[in-house]
Amino acid sequence: MTTKRVVITLLTDFGNVDYFVGAVKGAVLSVNPNAVIADITHEIAPQDIEAAAFTLLASYQTFPAGTIHVAVVDPGVGSARRPIVVRAGDQLFVGPDNGIFTYIYDREPSYQVFHITSEKYFRPSPSTTFHGRDIFAPVGAALSNGVRPEDLGPGITDPVRLKYSEFLRIIQIDRFGNCITNITRDLIDPKRSPTIVINRKEIRSFRECYGDASPNELFAIWGSAGFLEISINGSSAAEVLRAKRGDTILVRQD
Amino acid sequence: MTTKRVVITLLTDFGNVDYFVGAVKGAVLSVNPNAVIADITHEIAPQDIEAAAFTLLASYQTFPAGTIHVAVVDPGVGSARRPIVVRAGDQLFVGPDNGIFTYIYDREPSYQVFHITSEKYFRPSPSTTFHGRDIFAPVGAALSNGVRPEDLGPGITDPVRLKYSEFLRIIQIDRFGNCITNITRDLIDPKRSPTIVINRKEIRSFRECYGDASPNELFAIWGSAGFLEISINGSSAAEVLRAKRGDTILVRQD
Amino acid sequence: MTTKRVVITLLTDFGNVDYFVGAVKGAVLSVNPNAVIADITHEIAPQDIEAAAFTLLASYQTFPAGTIHVAVVDPGVGSARRPIVVRAGDQLFVGPDNGIFTYIYDREPSYQVFHITSEKYFRPSPSTTFHGRDIFAPVGAALSNGVRPEDLGPGITDPVRLKYSEFLRIIQIDRFGNCITNITRDLIDPKRSPTIVINRKEIRSFRECYGDASPNELFAIWGSAGFLEISINGSSAAEVLRAKRGDTILVRQD
Repeated sequence: MTTKRVVITLLTDFGNVDYFVGAVKGAVLSVNPNAVIADITHEIAPQDIEAAAFTLLASYQTFPAGTIHVAVVDPGVGSARRPIVVRAGDQLFVGPDNGIFTYIYDREPSYQVFHITSEKYFRPSPSTTFHGRDIFAPVGAALSNGVRPEDLGPGITDPVRLKYSEFLRIIQIDRFGNCITNITRDLIDPKRSPTIVINRKEIRSFRECYGDASPNELFAIWGSAGFLEISINGSSAAEVLRAKRGDTILVRQD
Repeated sequence: MTTKRVVITLLTDFGNVDYFVGAVKGAVLSVNPNAVIADITHEIAPQDIEAAAFTLLASYQTFPAGTIHVAVVDPGVGSARRPIVVRAGDQLFVGPDNGIFTYIYDREPSYQVFHITSEKYFRPSPSTTFHGRDIFAPVGAALSNGVRPEDLGPGITDPVRLKYSEFLRIIQIDRFGNCITNITRDLIDPKRSPTIVINRKEIRSFRECYGDASPNELFAIWGSAGFLEISINGSSAAEVLRAKRGDTILVRQD
Repeated sequence: MTTKRVVITLLTDFGNVDYFVGAVKGAVLSVNPNAVIADITHEIAPQDIEAAAFTLLASYQTFPAGTIHVAVVDPGVGSARRPIVVRAGDQLFVGPDNGIFTYIYDREPSYQVFHITSEKYFRPSPSTTFHGRDIFAPVGAALSNGVRPEDLGPGITDPVRLKYSEFLRIIQIDRFGNCITNITRDLIDPKRSPTIVINRKEIRSFRECYGDASPNELFAIWGSAGFLEISINGSSAAEVLRAKRGDTILVRQD
């Protein structure tokens, strides 16, 4: 066994109340007691694959090379959906093949996907209801021990992707009520007086930081996940806009 | 000091908002900076010993041999209730003697219990209100440094046990609304058309995985904690059944 | 690189739902994969600097010498407010200069404060909206690698302090509804029949532990953070008293 400390992140919808997270951590540490477990979140809304996909997108790049991300939001647990490992950039991703890694595929074009078929890395007698504990955690830990994705099963080229609107839209609302859009910098030309329209409300103010805004001012800001966000300093833009994830956005430029 | 990395889990009702969890982690790391701390949960409802006991039962077995579980739901803190260490299976359990380890005693018949009387492993001047920080955390960390349960105080044979109904009942409801019962596999004979009755609702459908169920179907499933659970895929069975922990269950078989 | 395992605590208002905490952990582990990350809490109410200051005060002393506390509640992120490092006792504190370390200054009189100006320890192209990830996490990790506060920028002598009432008051309400006051032991003389008055309710009962109190009894108790607390065993004193943080308190003694 190597003494290198590999980081294994956990991102689930298991919540922080029940026994699920503890059981998953134990399953990791039983296979690799030297793994460094880092919780990303366990508070993804139940079965909300799209929120999980966004949360992973917005956090994976800060982790060191070699990090293994175990992401389990898994409405199809126990059914025919495939367990997969993705190699992308210099990291690995383990989870169900249900679209949870869609944004990774978009961001890391040379990704490779493997269907996990080799049961030797599963916990004995895996349940049909808790693959986070019985398949994904021990497989993630096995990878941290040096097992290669190729050892787990055949490569596949048809991983499931989220089907989402190609329109400009709100892709996430965070705890501060910031509305995170899928608008990237190439879409906005500051010289053309851009106006963002959400639910008939027009936002023309662009700010560099939250503190620059006037009280109650709705403004656009380039957020830390790389997307344009609509915010109010010290208040919830989502509430003021009555906005929810999926709401479409209009961008007008001169 | 050994460099072996021993896992210390934490299971409390301290919540994730206040300073309690941080203070406990510091108390562990001050005694053994090489300990690997794994949070099981800190969101047990305040003083809900039975929920803590179930959560520990459902997660401890995935952890490696030598793991030390520090479980603190402790309405009697500062009173005469004993602090104890339990050796069971190949793991140790530290906490108040209030029944929190009942299910461990049931599951691991060759358990041993020790009354922690040696104050040399406590923090200096322990408070009367926060034994999680002042007694249980440093004792857990001392055990991870190689102190033996026998070093902490005398063995006892009368640990407190939860008094609960021997009837079939709901023992926990999880965040997904699954109703976890205390029904084990030996009680159900699939050939005898078993029917589960909760709050006058009859459940006859048994499923292998959540995805097999029809929409809105109430079904029984062998859950990942080893008990029969009543579920609805994508919805809360507890809400539909108006069920709460402790509700009794009837099982009819031909 | 040293193999010493330095503890880095995290205390933020980022919440446990979004991607923020994961991104911060990755930013730490990318700079020092051997750091031991200990979450104090991420559930400080958004922008509640005073709650963060109290939570840090009540937990930092249990951590070992050399611990680095990264505390980020940062309404002024991206504005002119200074990023600082504080050396106090045998620990380090990293965060925005907005008063979050006020109680540390009070408790550790020989503290030193440094304005972080050296950008070489920041993440490349730091955002204006997420200094937790881009400045405070990597700087904390750099300190854990042996960088000295003096290496980060000039010493300053005018750190921002919270402006709070000098009156006796409730400084925090915890999840159990305990009202934590700023009353310390030197203010109370048990021989002079002290009476605590909050919202016209008089509390004369002083208890050693929660279990000593009668049902529904409002009592005062020396809490584990070193302050007098007003409590009800098994219920919320804050609710009964209709008390909130900042409420003033009267102490009458014969």
